[in-house]
Amino acid sequence: MPAPTYRLSELAGKLGLKLVLREGAEDIEITGVSSLAEAGPSDLGFLANPKYASQLATTKAGAVIVKEEHAGEVERALVTPDPYPMFAQAIGLFAKPQGSFSGISHLACVDPSAGLGEGCTVYPFAYVGPGVVMGRGCTVFPGCYVGEDCELGDGCTLYPRAVLMAGTKLGEGCVLQPGAVIGAEGFGFARTPAGIKKVPQIGHVEIGGHVEIGANACVDRAALSATVISSGTCLDNLVQVGHNVRIGKDCLIVSQVGISGSTHVGDNVTMAGQAGISGHLQIGSGSTIGPQAGVAKDIPEGAVVGGSPTVDYNTYLRNATLMPKLPELFKRVSRIEQELGHKPMAESKPDRSLAAMWSRWLSMMHPGGK
Amino acid sequence: MPAPTYRLSELAGKLGLKLVLREGAEDIEITGVSSLAEAGPSDLGFLANPKYASQLATTKAGAVIVKEEHAGEVERALVTPDPYPMFAQAIGLFAKPQGSFSGISHLACVDPSAGLGEGCTVYPFAYVGPGVVMGRGCTVFPGCYVGEDCELGDGCTLYPRAVLMAGTKLGEGCVLQPGAVIGAEGFGFARTPAGIKKVPQIGHVEIGGHVEIGANACVDRAALSATVISSGTCLDNLVQVGHNVRIGKDCLIVSQVGISGSTHVGDNVTMAGQAGISGHLQIGSGSTIGPQAGVAKDIPEGAVVGGSPTVDYNTYLRNATLMPKLPELFKRVSRIEQELGHKPMAESKPDRSLAAMWSRWLSMMHPGGK
Amino acid sequence: MPAPTYRLSELAGKLGLKLVLREGAEDIEITGVSSLAEAGPSDLGFLANPKYASQLATTKAGAVIVKEEHAGEVERALVTPDPYPMFAQAIGLFAKPQGSFSGISHLACVDPSAGLGEGCTVYPFAYVGPGVVMGRGCTVFPGCYVGEDCELGDGCTLYPRAVLMAGTKLGEGCVLQPGAVIGAEGFGFARTPAGIKKVPQIGHVEIGGHVEIGANACVDRAALSATVISSGTCLDNLVQVGHNVRIGKDCLIVSQVGISGSTHVGDNVTMAGQAGISGHLQIGSGSTIGPQAGVAKDIPEGAVVGGSPTVDYNTYLRNATLMPKLPELFKRVSRIEQELGHKPMAESKPDRSLAAMWSRWLSMMHPGGK
Repeated sequence: MPAPTYRLSELAGKLGLKLVLREGAEDIEITGVSSLAEAGPSDLGFLANPKYASQLATTKAGAVIVKEEHAGEVERALVTPDPYPMFAQAIGLFAKPQGSFSGISHLACVDPSAGLGEGCTVYPFAYVGPGVVMGRGCTVFPGCYVGEDCELGDGCTLYPRAVLMAGTKLGEGCVLQPGAVIGAEGFGFARTPAGIKKVPQIGHVEIGGHVEIGANACVDRAALSATVISSGTCLDNLVQVGHNVRIGKDCLIVSQVGISGSTHVGDNVTMAGQAGISGHLQIGSGSTIGPQAGVAKDIPEGAVVGGSPTVDYNTYLRNATLMPKLPELFKRVSRIEQELGHKPMAESKPDRSLAAMWSRWLSMMHPGGK
Repeated sequence: MPAPTYRLSELAGKLGLKLVLREGAEDIEITGVSSLAEAGPSDLGFLANPKYASQLATTKAGAVIVKEEHAGEVERALVTPDPYPMFAQAIGLFAKPQGSFSGISHLACVDPSAGLGEGCTVYPFAYVGPGVVMGRGCTVFPGCYVGEDCELGDGCTLYPRAVLMAGTKLGEGCVLQPGAVIGAEGFGFARTPAGIKKVPQIGHVEIGGHVEIGANACVDRAALSATVISSGTCLDNLVQVGHNVRIGKDCLIVSQVGISGSTHVGDNVTMAGQAGISGHLQIGSGSTIGPQAGVAKDIPEGAVVGGSPTVDYNTYLRNATLMPKLPELFKRVSRIEQELGHKPMAESKPDRSLAAMWSRWLSMMHPGGK
Repeated sequence: MPAPTYRLSELAGKLGLKLVLREGAEDIEITGVSSLAEAGPSDLGFLANPKYASQLATTKAGAVIVKEEHAGEVERALVTPDPYPMFAQAIGLFAKPQGSFSGISHLACVDPSAGLGEGCTVYPFAYVGPGVVMGRGCTVFPGCYVGEDCELGDGCTLYPRAVLMAGTKLGEGCVLQPGAVIGAEGFGFARTPAGIKKVPQIGHVEIGGHVEIGANACVDRAALSATVISSGTCLDNLVQVGHNVRIGKDCLIVSQVGISGSTHVGDNVTMAGQAGISGHLQIGSGSTIGPQAGVAKDIPEGAVVGGSPTVDYNTYLRNATLMPKLPELFKRVSRIEQELGHKPMAESKPDRSLAAMWSRWLSMMHPGGK
């Protein structure tokens, strides 16, 4: 299937943007999208970050999406107040969808009681269980498992090996990246004198519309009711969402974040990579959790926090500057104490066990070296 | 398949609990289990945490599992000294198992030399290799891979896409959540002047009885002998266990923990989410490792530690209070130095690169905002 | 298939090592490899770490790979300046490859337009899409997905359920452990007033020769061009590599590391477990990033860093010693202030919310006691 191409004027129409041609410049065929630095004469580029404005003078791009103020700097401009999302939309026009098959493969296993809407595609080796209800235009790639009684809205895409355990509900337009697991049994265990007792998890997962779940990410089903992810929210790869968590709308949860059970997250929350959120907490709408943060208490709406345990953003930045000066601070206090005639604090030596661990590890990784 | 229901008196019998009915209350049909807040008149609830005792007065639950002291506060009580594990057992009576198929599917690929015990179920698209020995009543969901010479005890469940590489041994009653990988090749590499040399890992994994492995969790095989997980231990989602690790009985390893190669973990150890344990360490029985902890030295039996690198629990809590006051401490010391006529420490400014990184990231995540 | 065995003299030849026999000792059949502690009389062991030199006197190993200085301490020695990588090579001679099938299974789904080189093996339930080009001797295990137009060099191994999305390129001799996902859609999202806008990711992934990708690890495709992993680099389990990242040659990226989008990593970089690297950074060749490190700025070539945010290795070790003494430092400063007649800093009490969270969690994990 050849890649799509468009007349620039046609693109302008599709994107709803004003086309500004320099004197003598003509409409051209656009064959792809690119960064300004890598673009060729039939590519469409964009300028969003003023840091790269100088690239407008040197780019070979046939046309560029820019703000009004830069329209005169290029031969062919598509003008908008917000170039980045417009460029995103343009990319979509040139994107070839993944996959190479349509229809219901005879190599798939689809239960006779499953109801698939018009235009669904189910690849070889996909398994669709009894009572499943799938909307129109869903795509299920090889190796997927759609458990009994799952419900999928229109236009959902399950990339290879995505798993939906029984009773999972997806809204319309959801995308599950390869290996995503929805509805596995949450970590319900209790220690008793007789040993570890498992608490069966008999709830399910409910996901709103236009939610994206990253590769190998996991969303556990609830103990009794529902683990909920609301519309528009996106989870990155390897994210973990525990049982009974509720996440609001339009949240961005970056790679390798872990949210423990029963925590409630508001709308428009952003969590940076590898952050960890304890259980039974309230994370307020519009808040921002920093990378590798360790959240152990409720976070107010609109707060920006970082560190483990978390502190407010400004304290976090300030402490980042101060930590390298900690050894010096100890010396200064010792000096003051000496001057005042106090018994000084014991001299600080490096933690031997930690140094030994680093030593052993570094020599394993760099034999003969440090 | 309709959901199971029970007369309350029958439930009391099955759970071995005393049934206490208020004057005039009758035996009823119980159709499900629920939290006190969400229960309806034919649901069974429970009270374990005294914090929620007030809900006994308002709950609509038809019956409640409670301690003796609360038996008079509800219409129908099932009395026990330990309500939570009893409730767990009750949930099990109402749980519908996942899955919708039984028998050996003709769409599975089962090697003729594999020996499956009575009552096993193997779903479509599951692969069972040569020499595999499976006990009675095992269930292998779609997409699973059971490599040559694996041995499974009675009653094991492999949820969709679980992988057992060659020679893996599972005890009875093990459960692998979707995407779990047992027996992949450990990270055995050494740097040499000629480049990175791979060390083939030719050992295997041995797992005891009633072990649960979470979704997309990974347990690597040993270099030469066995990586061992003992009976009763449970691993949560996305956990990593490196080659040659030995984990004792009844450990709870929470989501996204990483345990590096050759570390030995005792019995009854609890590791909270995202903790990291270095290699070649001894983690004593009964110890507790806090969330996001970084363990770089042996941990004594019964210890409770937190932080990275770890410190004892009390120091960890105390430092959590002190860290936000660090900027103030630097100022106080400067003031003292001034008073004593010392040259003061340089004024601390926020780390510019870190602030720049946060700034760029925040504007990406919140264009137009902070 | 019986395990391979070799005469010791034959092994010496294959490994290119000098065989030194004690007076009266003979050539023997070697049937396996083992650690010195666990070896039997027909096993080959090795001594690399001087810490274990005393085991030479007690080992039952039939032969041992040692440095020249120890050749006289054992009955049969294979002599080399660098025993560990030599032992690694020996292990390879005794390793039985995983798997039990060869050829193209009729239960696989291989597109007629895919070109497979001589000697390829494709297992049942593997999917190979249109336009795929596979070199000689590649092996594709059950459940793998090789998307349209992927290119694999000679001798690649895709273990069960590995996923290559469209257009992925692998060099020769690559190994993907079970569940690895290459080419999923990167986390391209932007917040706009109208909500979250997805930025389609239409690039691909290019991987060099002899690269290993760990179990359930994820490497996202680029927004427009290529995410690159260069030859010899090895990624451990559950690692995340974001879109548009470029990694140089011979890097070792340990388990659960996360590298954010558009960061460039040089050659010979080592990243320890659970480290996190922010986006748009330059990580210099030969640098070492410590366990759980949080990298938020460029790292110079050859640097060794640790902590979050990172500091140089020596500062990291020193601070690890000082942090447990922080409470005492605050008390000392208060005492000085009192002596000078200052208003003292407020008394520090443990952070109540953090203590409450620990308390609740510990009692869940250990009912009845701490």
